[in-house]
Amino acid sequence: MNNVRYGGLEAGGTKMICVATDEEGVWLDQLTIPTLTPEETVPPIVAFFKKNGITSLGIGSFGPLDLKEGSDTYGSLASTPKKGWKGYPLLDAFNELNVPIEITTDVNGAALAEATKGAAKGLDSCMYITVGTGIGAGAVVNGNVLEGLSHPEMGHVPVKPHKDDSFQGHCPYHGTCAEGMAAGPAIEARWGKAGIELAEDDKVWQLEAYYLAQAIAAYTYVLSPKKVIIGGGVMKQKQLYALIREELVQQLNGYMDIGNPDDYIVAPGLHEHAGIEGALLLARQAERKR
Amino acid sequence: MNNVRYGGLEAGGTKMICVATDEEGVWLDQLTIPTLTPEETVPPIVAFFKKNGITSLGIGSFGPLDLKEGSDTYGSLASTPKKGWKGYPLLDAFNELNVPIEITTDVNGAALAEATKGAAKGLDSCMYITVGTGIGAGAVVNGNVLEGLSHPEMGHVPVKPHKDDSFQGHCPYHGTCAEGMAAGPAIEARWGKAGIELAEDDKVWQLEAYYLAQAIAAYTYVLSPKKVIIGGGVMKQKQLYALIREELVQQLNGYMDIGNPDDYIVAPGLHEHAGIEGALLLARQAERKR
Repeated sequence: MNNVRYGGLEAGGTKMICVATDEEGVWLDQLTIPTLTPEETVPPIVAFFKKNGITSLGIGSFGPLDLKEGSDTYGSLASTPKKGWKGYPLLDAFNELNVPIEITTDVNGAALAEATKGAAKGLDSCMYITVGTGIGAGAVVNGNVLEGLSHPEMGHVPVKPHKDDSFQGHCPYHGTCAEGMAAGPAIEARWGKAGIELAEDDKVWQLEAYYLAQAIAAYTYVLSPKKVIIGGGVMKQKQLYALIREELVQQLNGYMDIGNPDDYIVAPGLHEHAGIEGALLLARQAERKR
Repeated sequence: MNNVRYGGLEAGGTKMICVATDEEGVWLDQLTIPTLTPEETVPPIVAFFKKNGITSLGIGSFGPLDLKEGSDTYGSLASTPKKGWKGYPLLDAFNELNVPIEITTDVNGAALAEATKGAAKGLDSCMYITVGTGIGAGAVVNGNVLEGLSHPEMGHVPVKPHKDDSFQGHCPYHGTCAEGMAAGPAIEARWGKAGIELAEDDKVWQLEAYYLAQAIAAYTYVLSPKKVIIGGGVMKQKQLYALIREELVQQLNGYMDIGNPDDYIVAPGLHEHAGIEGALLLARQAERKR
């Protein structure tokens, strides 16, 4: 088979989404399976891509990943609590396909997809933040995904506790970082109930917006992104978008011009598909580097 | 004159440094003048570049600058307190040279120079921080200077006040941001003396390192730079480098692997020349885009 066929893998902590497309990007086949141990999960994925005769593969994966250039364990999972995956050589698991592969974080992939065909379409700069069981973010800078020494870990930026908030934070590494104060488990630990049960409680979301806006202020000062896209389970509380915009404007205090906050802070344009679309774009990058 | 000649302008709040080089980068001529009003300062700079027959120009300027793509005032100074410079169209002032021009911030230029021929030579990612009358930082990501909506304003990231520090901060916009807690004027306002008079007072520098490390932790989480270069007047207190490394390792708490802290946090390799060397590299970029 000489036709170009792109394979995309969105490797999540809960499920694995695999798609094969033709050169035009038309979906030819797909497979979604739960993320169990690598031994159970990876072989059917390899088989799926083999069956579909893919000619390049893109992977957007949960992390932390080793993306250090020249590292012996490049493309392996680092210290994840997910059973069986710590140190797992995810990239190498697809060597037997014998096709070029690009790998980055799920959120970097999602940022790339949003910049290419989603809410930031046509922009060479944006960031994608997910607020769920953790806070993760990826970015596109000058048209390319942001990596450096390894990949960003933006959820862990320091935040100032609110003067009325005595919560000590839920991050085992940093206590009161953004993730420790505002991810789903932090909401539950602070208020004693899951976010979904607190939907009507305005003070919960006001405080949530305070911390998320503080993190976004830091990202804005450091990256100056053209657009900030926020998704993830916690953002199903749609009232958060307006609250975050208000808080952000207040915290920036006129120092940086973000234009219209309604255009700056937005929901994902690709809805739940940003991750897999990002993986498929990485497959295109891999093909070009062939 | 058909020979390629590069012009570089490091536009600082105190002085303007102009250099003309040949194609190989050999300095042919230079001019340094104090930064007075634009009317007094700019004409001799234009005359200098005319006299030297430059074929492209690079500018690394103090800020804030308007670097918004498509902006009518692209390349103009924004709201600087520097007399006469607010809104000044710096880029347009060199239109009469009729050569291609690239402009970015002084710190972005310095980061580019350090990545090309300084402390981060050979790396496609680094950041350059200056700690002086303010805190500014620029970065190189995937080999290019970091810009987005406009340019970063990294000095203004939020920081958590130290538990023993009741200082309310010195930033008119944000109070206790990194610049408000750790730039030169903040040191002087907190302790009642300029940093240079406090050189022997260990607790001053321990606290200074606490705040600078917190800002660098945020930059590390957001950008994952391959190297962090710190210069500026406050860093003449050389003991700060070791203190910042210690604090940073403690604050990251093992979450991100920065390798050897002595290699991660370093002084500028180009010493005082990072800014002008960056401007000259921008002139090369302008030439390539011709």
